Amino acid sequence: MATRWPTLIEDGDGLLILDQTRLPREAAMLRLTTLEDVAHAIRVMQVRGAPLIGATAAYGVALGLADDAGDERLAQVIETLAATRPTAVNLHWALARMQRALQKSALATRRERAWQEARAIAEEDKKANAAIGMHGLPVIARVRKAKSQINHSLPQEGPNPSPPPLGGGGREGVRTYCDGDVVNVMTHCNAGRLATVDCGTAISPVYAAHADGLPVHVWVSETRPRNQGLLTAWELAEAGVPHTLIADNAAGLLLMQGRVDLVIVGADRIAANGDTANKVGTYLKALAARAHGVPFYVAAPLSTIDFACASGAQIPIEERSAEELGAGAVPVANPAFDVTPAALISGIISERGIAAADQLEQWRP
Amino acid sequence: MATRWPTLIEDGDGLLILDQTRLPREAAMLRLTTLEDVAHAIRVMQVRGAPLIGATAAYGVALGLADDAGDERLAQVIETLAATRPTAVNLHWALARMQRALQKSALATRRERAWQEARAIAEEDKKANAAIGMHGLPVIARVRKAKSQINHSLPQEGPNPSPPPLGGGGREGVRTYCDGDVVNVMTHCNAGRLATVDCGTAISPVYAAHADGLPVHVWVSETRPRNQGLLTAWELAEAGVPHTLIADNAAGLLLMQGRVDLVIVGADRIAANGDTANKVGTYLKALAARAHGVPFYVAAPLSTIDFACASGAQIPIEERSAEELGAGAVPVANPAFDVTPAALISGIISERGIAAADQLEQWRP
Repeated sequence: MATRWPTLIEDGDGLLILDQTRLPREAAMLRLTTLEDVAHAIRVMQVRGAPLIGATAAYGVALGLADDAGDERLAQVIETLAATRPTAVNLHWALARMQRALQKSALATRRERAWQEARAIAEEDKKANAAIGMHGLPVIARVRKAKSQINHSLPQEGPNPSPPPLGGGGREGVRTYCDGDVVNVMTHCNAGRLATVDCGTAISPVYAAHADGLPVHVWVSETRPRNQGLLTAWELAEAGVPHTLIADNAAGLLLMQGRVDLVIVGADRIAANGDTANKVGTYLKALAARAHGVPFYVAAPLSTIDFACASGAQIPIEERSAEELGAGAVPVANPAFDVTPAALISGIISERGIAAADQLEQWRP
Repeated sequence: MATRWPTLIEDGDGLLILDQTRLPREAAMLRLTTLEDVAHAIRVMQVRGAPLIGATAAYGVALGLADDAGDERLAQVIETLAATRPTAVNLHWALARMQRALQKSALATRRERAWQEARAIAEEDKKANAAIGMHGLPVIARVRKAKSQINHSLPQEGPNPSPPPLGGGGREGVRTYCDGDVVNVMTHCNAGRLATVDCGTAISPVYAAHADGLPVHVWVSETRPRNQGLLTAWELAEAGVPHTLIADNAAGLLLMQGRVDLVIVGADRIAANGDTANKVGTYLKALAARAHGVPFYVAAPLSTIDFACASGAQIPIEERSAEELGAGAVPVANPAFDVTPAALISGIISERGIAAADQLEQWRP
């Protein structure tokens, strides 16, 4: 690792973002200076991931107030940003917070106040995600302990009681994952540091485990149609965490074969009853995890919980363009999210700790 | 439809196959004249689909005996073809049948006998698949009748009691699928005519319904990493059957939303107990269909049933090259099939009719 590319940093009166549409081919920062720059970046997914969208939108408010910080302009700026993407609630959470802060602020200081509040949102995101890592670490440690006890109680006929590796010998990830005591975590999409200002959500406990010397290997789902799994592979490689990319379709087989110890995913919106919208395909993994008794956790900051939304049925599901499938003139449906019912979720990991999915009331602000 | 491209036809002392690695970009026939041509075509998936692999391998035996039809050469030819792909049992079924026929045949007539037997296998495949269509048709008709009764008992507030379409208005498939009485069939991979000598397996009942005037719409899964869903979309377009392509990840959401009435998939090997190996990702669809009470059928000729294989645990799962995911140097696992337990299968449709997955003994030869 030569440079550790930040996802979002201030740059004078502008914003530098890591352009995620160019990853993993190339890492390059993109400078945003206007409201329209920010709205476009969110819409086309140059920035993505619910927490990072929230922080970027907050800075978008600051940039949008450059010329005119009046109430009418503020409302217009917020409306423009709110319309970029419908499912991730962190966007709306961040905009509501900006609005509350700025309404109380005198016109003359509003621009400066907007920068301050956006900065605070970004800083708090890092801290929340680091805390998610700390709260998730014991989950990984417990899985490892249980696995280690099972492995050591098996007859020691060979070095590896797991099933034989799935071909591809000689590649690091594949060699590593079946080692007896390694915890195999499956994730979906990218809920790592690239989806946040820093640390990640679902991957934050993985980084905590890796830093703590717990051997961990991550099954990375490609995540069609946008292939955000490649972003996860990119950042895991950067951090030196062993990982293996799979087609989304392979998740059921790996769970059936006992090659997954734990599933952790992020979230774009969690309803008050614990139903969780996340990148489309998450629900299939939750069903397969349940079928094989594998714990399935959701990791997200409190800003992802929408207490105004009673259940998953009320979460709007974004339909994105047919072009994302790259199939030319073929008719396409392209929903970007799905909803995993609370009953399939072993627990929700936030900066406040771990709660059962149907016990989120304790976190209501 | 100008030309209806055949998947496999004899051409003098060679074989013409539709090169499926070039579809849907372009349709082009490829001439195979040697054993090595055929083995290569199967290995790199220029021909694919369990039934078509079987028929092509049978012709491969005929081509392999061009110069020498002795027992040693015959064994060598069969060994070469058997080694091409491990999971689809039709390959081994066809080779065993060729071996039995040729062992009884005098050396002087063996080449001619090989062509005859390969031709018989190809002809029988067409007939078996057409019969699968006839046996599967009543399943679609029953689903439509049940759906129509439900729809007509709902208050007639608008023309369409289904949930609103998933965006993308104006595209034929998306407009069609939510019409009240249309039967929405979900499939996986390509188990249409392109996977067979003709007619298809999973798609054969769809073609029968379409020919019978039953309105049907097919959800076509992209089927990463090889994108065989694009082959299904191609042949459905050719036949004028409404269809919509989705990312594999979207299957769970569509089932949850009630937009799928029936799932039909093909098979690469069915164990004696009904456990079914099919293209990786099938198992996730079976779990989601079960979670939402949607019937899940497997359609395959009897040649796909491996009575020598007691259960799915004994079916070898092919691991294909990392390059298929196109992720450069990222470590990859790429299993090409998964196993759906018999308990998740509503019925198996063969040329003999429909059997419960745990009642295949009645079909043991």
